[in-house]
Amino acid sequence: MAGIKRLVLDVLKPHYPLVLEFACALSELNGVAGVNLSLYEVDQETENVKITIEGDELNYEEIKRVINELGAVIHSIDEVVAGKRIVEEVETHQD
Amino acid sequence: MAGIKRLVLDVLKPHYPLVLEFACALSELNGVAGVNLSLYEVDQETENVKITIEGDELNYEEIKRVINELGAVIHSIDEVVAGKRIVEEVETHQD
Amino acid sequence: MAGIKRLVLDVLKPHYPLVLEFACALSELNGVAGVNLSLYEVDQETENVKITIEGDELNYEEIKRVINELGAVIHSIDEVVAGKRIVEEVETHQD
Amino acid sequence: MAGIKRLVLDVLKPHYPLVLEFACALSELNGVAGVNLSLYEVDQETENVKITIEGDELNYEEIKRVINELGAVIHSIDEVVAGKRIVEEVETHQD
Amino acid sequence: MAGIKRLVLDVLKPHYPLVLEFACALSELNGVAGVNLSLYEVDQETENVKITIEGDELNYEEIKRVINELGAVIHSIDEVVAGKRIVEEVETHQD
Amino acid sequence: MAGIKRLVLDVLKPHYPLVLEFACALSELNGVAGVNLSLYEVDQETENVKITIEGDELNYEEIKRVINELGAVIHSIDEVVAGKRIVEEVETHQD
Amino acid sequence: MAGIKRLVLDVLKPHYPLVLEFACALSELNGVAGVNLSLYEVDQETENVKITIEGDELNYEEIKRVINELGAVIHSIDEVVAGKRIVEEVETHQD
Repeated sequence: MAGIKRLVLDVLKPHYPLVLEFACALSELNGVAGVNLSLYEVDQETENVKITIEGDELNYEEIKRVINELGAVIHSIDEVVAGKRIVEEVETHQD
Repeated sequence: MAGIKRLVLDVLKPHYPLVLEFACALSELNGVAGVNLSLYEVDQETENVKITIEGDELNYEEIKRVINELGAVIHSIDEVVAGKRIVEEVETHQD
Repeated sequence: MAGIKRLVLDVLKPHYPLVLEFACALSELNGVAGVNLSLYEVDQETENVKITIEGDELNYEEIKRVINELGAVIHSIDEVVAGKRIVEEVETHQD
Repeated sequence: MAGIKRLVLDVLKPHYPLVLEFACALSELNGVAGVNLSLYEVDQETENVKITIEGDELNYEEIKRVINELGAVIHSIDEVVAGKRIVEEVETHQD
Repeated sequence: MAGIKRLVLDVLKPHYPLVLEFACALSELNGVAGVNLSLYEVDQETENVKITIEGDELNYEEIKRVINELGAVIHSIDEVVAGKRIVEEVETHQD
Repeated sequence: MAGIKRLVLDVLKPHYPLVLEFACALSELNGVAGVNLSLYEVDQETENVKITIEGDELNYEEIKRVINELGAVIHSIDEVVAGKRIVEEVETHQD
Repeated sequence: MAGIKRLVLDVLKPHYPLVLEFACALSELNGVAGVNLSLYEVDQETENVKITIEGDELNYEEIKRVINELGAVIHSIDEVVAGKRIVEEVETHQD
C-alpha cells in the first residue's frame, strides 16, 4: 500500500490536555500503526512536542484536525515518507 | 492490542523507599511488560529518576497513583507511544 | 535490475505546496519504492529540503521535472547509488 | 518470570579482594544469569566499580550482603529493571 | 571469488557530466555490484566526489579509464579491500 | 558453564616479545575461546596493551602466570564478566 | 582452527607500488580471508596505511616479508586477535 507512511510534526500545545490524549486520539485514526510524542521544550503556558506517526496512507488533514481540536498547532512538517516502503534519510557530507 | 505502549516519566522521589520498590510495584500493574528506573540526579533529600514503562494498554492514572503512594511526584511525561506497534522518535534536522 | 537505486537531492522550495505534495508526486513515479523528505532550513519565503529517493532504474529527468513543476529547484545531487545492489559510502580517514 | 531482571550498582571497594572474587560470588547467587564488573576510578586505598547484574528475580538483599561481606559498600543503585522482560531506558530531549 | 572487492576513490571532476553519468558508467563495468558517489566539496569549476565501488575482481585500470574519459581525475585511493570476503577497517587506539 | 567468561586487563610489556607471542600463548590456555590485544601507548622501553580474553571458566592465575613469564605485568583488571552468559556493562547517567 | 585470526598493522610505504598491489599480494597468502588497506596520512614521498588482515592461522613472518618486498615497513602491530573465534576489544572506563 502506497501513500504517506511517516510524518514528523513539530507541534505547540498548551499543558492540557496531556500528551496522552494526543497519543490516543491520533493512534485511533485510519491507517495509523503507531504514534510517538516526545516533549522537547517546556514554557510557562505551552510546550513543544515532536510527533512521529507511522502507518499506511496517513491522512494529513485528519491528523491536523485532531491536533487542532485538542488546542494545539502544527509549527512545521519536519519529515515525510511516502511510497511502498519506508526510506530513511541518508547522511551526506552536505549535512 | 492498541492503547499506550510506552511511557517515559521524569519523577522526583525521596531517597526511601528505594527505586527497587517502585520497580516492583509498577511491574505488577495490569498491562506492564517491563519497567526501567534510572537514577540521574541525587540531591540531599531527594533524587530524580527516569521511569520507562512498556506494555499494552498502560493505565497512566494507575501508574501515577502507585508513584504518588510511594511518596514521589511525576514532573513531566517525557515520551508517550500509543497504537498497534511501538514507533521510535525519528531524528530530524530540527532537533 | 540495475540502474540508479538511490538519489539524494538538496532542493529549494517555496513554503507551498507542502512537502506532502512533493512526497506523493515523487512516490508515484516509475521505479520509485519510497521517498523521504526532510526539512533542514526554513527562511521567510523558502525552505530547504533534502530528498532521498530509493527504487530501481530511477529516472532523474522525470524526478527533476516533477520537482520543477511544483515550483522547486534542485541545488545539488548529494549522493547517487547505481548498480545491482545499494552500496553505502564507507567512512575513511580522508573524510 | 517477573521480579527484578537487572541491577546496576555503584560500589566502593578496597583493592582486595580483587573484582574477580566479587564476580564469582555474585554469579553464584540464585537467579543470577551473569555479572559484569567494570573498574572506573582507582584511588590509593579504594576503587569504584560499576556492577551490572542480570537474571530473574534478583534478590537485592542477598546481593548487598555478599558485597558487604567482601568489604565493599553500595553507593547507589543506578538502574533497576523489573517485569516480564528487560526494558531499556529511552533517550529523550529532557536528558 | 578473490580479487579486489571494494575501492574507495577521491575524485575531482568538473560540474558536468553529472555524477549520475559516472554512476551509470561505472556500474556497468565487469564485476561491479554497486557504486556510491557522494559529493563532499563544491568549488566554482570543480567538485570533489568520493566514489565507493563494490563487487568481485574489480578492475582498477578499467575504472580509472572510465573516470578519466568522463573528464575527471583520481586524487587518491582511500581504501581497498581484497580477498575472499570484505574485511572492514578496525578502529584502534592508534587512530 | 559458569565461571569467568571475560577478562579485560591493562598490561605493561617491554617491546619484545611481540604482542603476537602473548596472543598465541594466551589463546592456548584452557577455556580460552579468543584473545584480543590492542596497543594503546608506546614508550621508549615499554608499551601498554589492553588484553581482552573471552571463554569459559577462565583461570586468572594461569593467565597472570603466562603474562609474567613473557616479561609483562598486569596493571589493573578493567573488567570481569562471570556467570552463565556474558552481561555487558549498561551505560547510566552516573557514568 | 586456532592461531592468529586478525592483524592490524601500521605501515609506511612509498607512493608506488599502489595500495592495490599490497592488497592483492596479501590476499593471496595462506590463511588470508580478506585484507583492508586504508590510507590515513599522505606525505611528499611516503604514505601511511593501516592494514587489517583477517583469516585463520595468519603467518606474521610471511605477511611482513610481502610488505617489505613491496618496499614498505611495519611501524607497529596495533591489534592482534588469536584463538578459536574473533574477540573484539571491549571499551572500558580506563580507555
